[in-house]
Amino acid sequence: MAKKLSWTEARDILTEQAAPVGTERKPLRDACGRILAAPVTAAENVPPFDRSPYDGYALRSADTQGELPVTLKILEEIPAGSVPTAALTPGTAAKILTGAPVPEGADCCIKFEETEFGPETVTVPVRLSPGENLVRAGEDMRIGDLLADAGRRVDAGAAGAIASQGIAEVEVYRVPRVGVISIGSELIEPGEPMRPGCIVNSSRYALQAALEAEGLSVSFYPIPRDDTDAIAALVDAALTENDAVITTGGVSVGDYDLTKAAYEQAGVRILCGDLALKPGGKSWYGIRNGRLIFGLSGNPASAMTNFYAVVLPCLRKLRGDPGGRLPEMYAALAESFGKSGKQTRLLRGRLILGESGPVFAAADKQGNSAIHTLAGANALAEIPAGTGPLEAGTKVKIYYFGE
Amino acid sequence: MAKKLSWTEARDILTEQAAPVGTERKPLRDACGRILAAPVTAAENVPPFDRSPYDGYALRSADTQGELPVTLKILEEIPAGSVPTAALTPGTAAKILTGAPVPEGADCCIKFEETEFGPETVTVPVRLSPGENLVRAGEDMRIGDLLADAGRRVDAGAAGAIASQGIAEVEVYRVPRVGVISIGSELIEPGEPMRPGCIVNSSRYALQAALEAEGLSVSFYPIPRDDTDAIAALVDAALTENDAVITTGGVSVGDYDLTKAAYEQAGVRILCGDLALKPGGKSWYGIRNGRLIFGLSGNPASAMTNFYAVVLPCLRKLRGDPGGRLPEMYAALAESFGKSGKQTRLLRGRLILGESGPVFAAADKQGNSAIHTLAGANALAEIPAGTGPLEAGTKVKIYYFGE
Repeated sequence: MAKKLSWTEARDILTEQAAPVGTERKPLRDACGRILAAPVTAAENVPPFDRSPYDGYALRSADTQGELPVTLKILEEIPAGSVPTAALTPGTAAKILTGAPVPEGADCCIKFEETEFGPETVTVPVRLSPGENLVRAGEDMRIGDLLADAGRRVDAGAAGAIASQGIAEVEVYRVPRVGVISIGSELIEPGEPMRPGCIVNSSRYALQAALEAEGLSVSFYPIPRDDTDAIAALVDAALTENDAVITTGGVSVGDYDLTKAAYEQAGVRILCGDLALKPGGKSWYGIRNGRLIFGLSGNPASAMTNFYAVVLPCLRKLRGDPGGRLPEMYAALAESFGKSGKQTRLLRGRLILGESGPVFAAADKQGNSAIHTLAGANALAEIPAGTGPLEAGTKVKIYYFGE
Repeated sequence: MAKKLSWTEARDILTEQAAPVGTERKPLRDACGRILAAPVTAAENVPPFDRSPYDGYALRSADTQGELPVTLKILEEIPAGSVPTAALTPGTAAKILTGAPVPEGADCCIKFEETEFGPETVTVPVRLSPGENLVRAGEDMRIGDLLADAGRRVDAGAAGAIASQGIAEVEVYRVPRVGVISIGSELIEPGEPMRPGCIVNSSRYALQAALEAEGLSVSFYPIPRDDTDAIAALVDAALTENDAVITTGGVSVGDYDLTKAAYEQAGVRILCGDLALKPGGKSWYGIRNGRLIFGLSGNPASAMTNFYAVVLPCLRKLRGDPGGRLPEMYAALAESFGKSGKQTRLLRGRLILGESGPVFAAADKQGNSAIHTLAGANALAEIPAGTGPLEAGTKVKIYYFGE
């Protein structure tokens, strides 16, 4: 028997095949959270003019170099949104509000509470330097500066920066569509009456929550009969209608495990499968017309471990994320981990960014089907093959999938 | 002049006032990402019956205690989703597929590849113990176990666990509605022609991205005239139509800074404001009929710093998050920070969960209006008042706001 692939090898084979979906031009208001498909550069200086950071007076610093205090004549008042009408001449100032452009001739400002002022004049008691209390044009951004690169999410900062340039539309990757097929004639939906030997289709909801949290669009297909033809027909439809497909169930080697045969019947080229990973190693992955299909275990916790480790990086790449890989780091195990094993394990649990450094609290039960212990999890911890029981505090490698 | 409040004091005053919005009963499929308003407990054992973790044979361990190998008669085949029809008697076994219930009398299973088998009999070469290769009913979850507590987000694990119990509906907090009013007659929208002295309303988009990333519903109001009556009318409408309101602009003390007066005119009780914080200290906060209103700076970066530090914890509490507070930790500064200051600073930047421990990469420019340096930021680092320049590697306190 050939050596099984590690989960990182499978992930790398699959992310290599994952290409971003098409792009679309969207109004900025509809693009928040999306990933930019083209870099956005500054078309304007920010701020576009020299402006006052305070409510106060704009003046010529030269006027404060002589005897102090110095009294200056107020030429006009410049609210934010207005334009100065007169250049300052020696001995003059302009009343100015926060954010307003300073008049020609002014090279500094002073807060009004540091002055004495009346309707006609302002008295300045301190020496000022050129540029003091002045925000220079282009200080925050110059024409041509990169506002946000392709592959960057339109987060608060990017959205604000793009808007600040008057840019009303951006090119973003469209939302990938992911089809989900739950395989297994033992599955029933929540709310349906329980029947002996049946199990509720919990993976579907776990996948829905995980996919929606990533901003992906999800379509669910009806549960097929345990029959190659029925599964192949659904796989065919799902691969036609979506950018990627996930199936759960039917991945092991028994009589009723028909996924791989159904994939092949639907024209899928198998890329890899059956990983050296616990839980979630039982899996098949393929591609058809550039669209990936991920065949995960019918055990919900196995399926979700594999989902976060292998599938999610691919889906993030589809969405436009340049790398897709989960952020990796090290954290101390919050509690000892008693098992050793021949296969690499991925523990589900919570990375806690505590005050004394990052800690990984592994979920209580790591069984294949104990999906409830995935609640609150935000990371996987890797216990390499052959590693014995680990004491609390041992540093382990963490793959962070979020929240 | 009274001592200014710290940002944490203001945050605590305000989160104290923030009460979760009402709850609603939703189908599980529409509840993903929401926060549970009531605990969900297990109504069924998981798995509901003793089941086989493998494709193989269910048998009586007693039959393997004598001479080996032992050949057993196959009574029936039990696919997943089926129910055994016959109890095992000595010398018999049942062919069983992964996940199927074991028949009465069986107390262990064996993988088919560890046996020799024909259509009628299976030959077992090893001694088995009671419970071996058997998933016991209730092994993953017992009736009454807490599936997911109130205040817990319906994430992948919670959604899967709730579904696994056949629970089709849950009680969740509804999505809070947040109204946003941009104050400042100098503001224009992206796409409008630039006019001298005008500035694009970038805060609106930064807030939209930040609020949507939190799963909140956002309504924008038209930009009012710089006039107390006009602003007060909008504040009144926004506080009537939303669970919370954010205004930007008009928070400092100048002639055109009318926010506080407008708040009071609209019946808002001012709770606090004007914090000892850079940037974003200029702010006013109030409440009317239990609804909070947050008045942030017109400088986008100031507004967003204050948003993440003070406003977001309140909004998370509205959404049903029990605490609301941002996760706190320490990280090493990636680069030196040159400034010292009399006021507490919050630097925006990126917490990087690197392999050698958490590092905080402060954004390049920390100016009030340099909103583009918020792109990619996921955290604030606190530089306490009176702290001098800091060397690279200095541990600083981090407030993590996500992604």
